[in-house]
Amino acid sequence: MLISEYAIVSEKARIGANVVVGPYTIIHANVELQDNCIIGAYCELGISNHLSCGENLVIGKGSHIRSHSVFYEGSKFGPGLITGHRVTVREKTMVGDNFQIGTLSDIQGHCKIGDHVRIFNNVHIAQHADIGDFVWMFPYVVLTNDPHPPSEVVQGVTVQNFAVIATMSVILPGAIISEGCLIGAHSSISGKTVKDTIYAGSPGKKLGPTSNIKLKDGTGRSAYPWRKHFHRGYPQAVVDIWCNEKY
Amino acid sequence: MLISEYAIVSEKARIGANVVVGPYTIIHANVELQDNCIIGAYCELGISNHLSCGENLVIGKGSHIRSHSVFYEGSKFGPGLITGHRVTVREKTMVGDNFQIGTLSDIQGHCKIGDHVRIFNNVHIAQHADIGDFVWMFPYVVLTNDPHPPSEVVQGVTVQNFAVIATMSVILPGAIISEGCLIGAHSSISGKTVKDTIYAGSPGKKLGPTSNIKLKDGTGRSAYPWRKHFHRGYPQAVVDIWCNEKY
Amino acid sequence: MLISEYAIVSEKARIGANVVVGPYTIIHANVELQDNCIIGAYCELGISNHLSCGENLVIGKGSHIRSHSVFYEGSKFGPGLITGHRVTVREKTMVGDNFQIGTLSDIQGHCKIGDHVRIFNNVHIAQHADIGDFVWMFPYVVLTNDPHPPSEVVQGVTVQNFAVIATMSVILPGAIISEGCLIGAHSSISGKTVKDTIYAGSPGKKLGPTSNIKLKDGTGRSAYPWRKHFHRGYPQAVVDIWCNEKY
Repeated sequence: MLISEYAIVSEKARIGANVVVGPYTIIHANVELQDNCIIGAYCELGISNHLSCGENLVIGKGSHIRSHSVFYEGSKFGPGLITGHRVTVREKTMVGDNFQIGTLSDIQGHCKIGDHVRIFNNVHIAQHADIGDFVWMFPYVVLTNDPHPPSEVVQGVTVQNFAVIATMSVILPGAIISEGCLIGAHSSISGKTVKDTIYAGSPGKKLGPTSNIKLKDGTGRSAYPWRKHFHRGYPQAVVDIWCNEKY
Repeated sequence: MLISEYAIVSEKARIGANVVVGPYTIIHANVELQDNCIIGAYCELGISNHLSCGENLVIGKGSHIRSHSVFYEGSKFGPGLITGHRVTVREKTMVGDNFQIGTLSDIQGHCKIGDHVRIFNNVHIAQHADIGDFVWMFPYVVLTNDPHPPSEVVQGVTVQNFAVIATMSVILPGAIISEGCLIGAHSSISGKTVKDTIYAGSPGKKLGPTSNIKLKDGTGRSAYPWRKHFHRGYPQAVVDIWCNEKY
Repeated sequence: MLISEYAIVSEKARIGANVVVGPYTIIHANVELQDNCIIGAYCELGISNHLSCGENLVIGKGSHIRSHSVFYEGSKFGPGLITGHRVTVREKTMVGDNFQIGTLSDIQGHCKIGDHVRIFNNVHIAQHADIGDFVWMFPYVVLTNDPHPPSEVVQGVTVQNFAVIATMSVILPGAIISEGCLIGAHSSISGKTVKDTIYAGSPGKKLGPTSNIKLKDGTGRSAYPWRKHFHRGYPQAVVDIWCNEKY
């Protein structure tokens, strides 16, 4: 039996083949779990909300949602979602394939996330963020959206492909973190950054091209673009493209 | 049936009319839920503690506590409390009307919070904080209380009416954030701030009157005091007073 | 009956005398709870993981794990562990006696923690941290480990005996926080610090000996080393040693 006898699963929920649901988890009617999903214990999926416009929560095939997580209705995830524990995702979060998000992270909804994005623990994403592909965010990163809180003005943050935001950094409203940038730990960033450039500090300053940083593995190679040396968990087809790129 | 058959509710708890209690929630004896409260799943309310002096947890009428939250006995909330998920509130937290507190926020108890206060996600409030009315705090704000940790000296933080503390800011022990101040994101603040003034940086510096900040809505109005333009969710009687104020 | 009728406890788990297990808690086979442990509600203990090498989770006698916490198999805790709510501990975390860790803190596993360590709420400990005895960390401290993320290079942080790290500080990869140091709030620290010295800022700067800080209790004594005046909760035999130390 794959669905725990201690789970509460609505008869109207659409549950794929080989789906596992842990004890004490609640799955509401407005949920679609595609084949081979694993849902941990104490999760609540498909919480209704007047902002969801009655749309389903869709979890792509082969996803794994760990315990104590909360997902609202009206969000969609491609295949291969992997979460830590106690993740929160509000309505209208539209996510591509192979998204990874760590324990205690919190997505406020009404935002867009590309493919192969990896977000660590305790990351907070305000509404109207627009996140590209292959982006990384480390613990306690916050994406904001209100330039003079509280107000009715919303300026979401953009994070482009391959950008990396290190721990405890705040991305200020309307900022654009350009492709391949590295934001150092404990920084505050506003405005539009230059591609493949390091920024750090509060307020953040430009510190030169990311290629200046050398890998501390004894090889003397550049640490960025990281896709030249870090391939763990990406599809082979993607890694093959990266290995054949010219710089 | 408003009380889930999967909830554990003490026969001694005082449960008002039309109260909804979600599955797997535990409500201990020392709890008073007033009329029309909604309590989500997996909450535990009324945890006993030797510091609570055996006083009840009182949740005012029309409150909504979301899932996975934990409240100790010995705290009192006025009507209209709204919480996110996984909120923690320790004993002897005395709160006014219409308090809003976001997902993962954590109140350490032994503190006082006024009316219409709005705290976002992941805010941490140390003991002996004294928070006025209409205060705002954004994600990952921390109020501290020990000037030379660890010690037995406690210097709680004061936050006065209408003050706003932006994301990831630390308010140092004994600081007084005066009425109408704006604390910028990612700042550290000590001492007593001047009323209606902007402070930012770590250590925080005075950056001029809050009225210098203009609303990014094309009107050219000042963004502060925010009550001149931001009214969402406040009672009409309060908004009427604000609209008739002279500056 | 000490084990709640609503808990799910594997018959293979090793449960000591007088152990209390709260409602809806799950205890897997690979768990050893020694005598007199108290486990709150909604916890999941002994989650399996291919990195655990099939080793047990061992919780020492007289421990208290609060609600909604998650512990993986393959970690070991000495007697007297006390946790807040919603703590997460991954595999291969090796901890001494009397460890205290606050609500929402998160240990990524593969790390070592000494005796009498006290970690407050929302502390994040990356893999390969090496933490001594009598260490303190305050809310939202992050220990990191990757010098150029993402990469396969891991440089864990070392925190030596009696060191204190104040709120919202980031300890950068490979840093060594030496014995008796005080890291001020909202700081970023790299490299090796000098013993019994204050560092603060981002990037952190040396601010002089910790003995310069005077206790704000009217006595004029130095606030550091803190063990000269702060004894709450430590064993009398330890306090006796501290009181007889010469400085």
